[in-house]
Amino acid sequence: MIIKHYSDVKPGTYAGTPDGVQVREMITGLDGAPNFSLRVFDVQPGVSTPFHTHEHEHEVFILEGRGTVRTEGSQTPFKPGDSVFIAPHEKHCFVAEGNTQVRFICVVPSKKQCSL
Amino acid sequence: MIIKHYSDVKPGTYAGTPDGVQVREMITGLDGAPNFSLRVFDVQPGVSTPFHTHEHEHEVFILEGRGTVRTEGSQTPFKPGDSVFIAPHEKHCFVAEGNTQVRFICVVPSKKQCSL
Repeated sequence: MIIKHYSDVKPGTYAGTPDGVQVREMITGLDGAPNFSLRVFDVQPGVSTPFHTHEHEHEVFILEGRGTVRTEGSQTPFKPGDSVFIAPHEKHCFVAEGNTQVRFICVVPSKKQCSL
Repeated sequence: MIIKHYSDVKPGTYAGTPDGVQVREMITGLDGAPNFSLRVFDVQPGVSTPFHTHEHEHEVFILEGRGTVRTEGSQTPFKPGDSVFIAPHEKHCFVAEGNTQVRFICVVPSKKQCSL
């Protein structure tokens, strides 16, 4: 069993991440997790994650803040308590709107732990 | 892209789950998720999930409430913002302590979506 608080984990960035987006890798293969990784993203007001696509899925849970999840052909508002499933190869981004940061959990397959 | 609020998902239980433990399956294979499932557990004050073990891992993030995660040989307090990794075959339970419910996210491999 490994337990870590959000505040114990040093924030980082990935290639292509704009200023105003930070990620904390809470549980990864380095902890012995065999299948998937759990990260926490902080996105500052007015900032968006890149509008991009990749072969792996996202499973997201919104912890705080409001914004819009954009895909090709859709723009959907999100709020705390929402879960968001992004399918493999689906183009997407998360835009922080309002006056406070957006914080969300994003789970990906382990082999993708070092990417968005 | 699929988005669902916590309040949109009907709570359920699993075999062996005591009264006072509810689970909402937020993202599963039924949504097209290929690898893992994201559930939200609510555990009422004074209640514990079963002290048990299984071949799959847990990746947990504490949303609200306080308590203790128990394994064989350890009892560790948890609070909101903690992530907890339970390794495959590691005996464990989550005990809700204090006066308010514990709510946590628990991610498991997809094939285990219908178990604790």
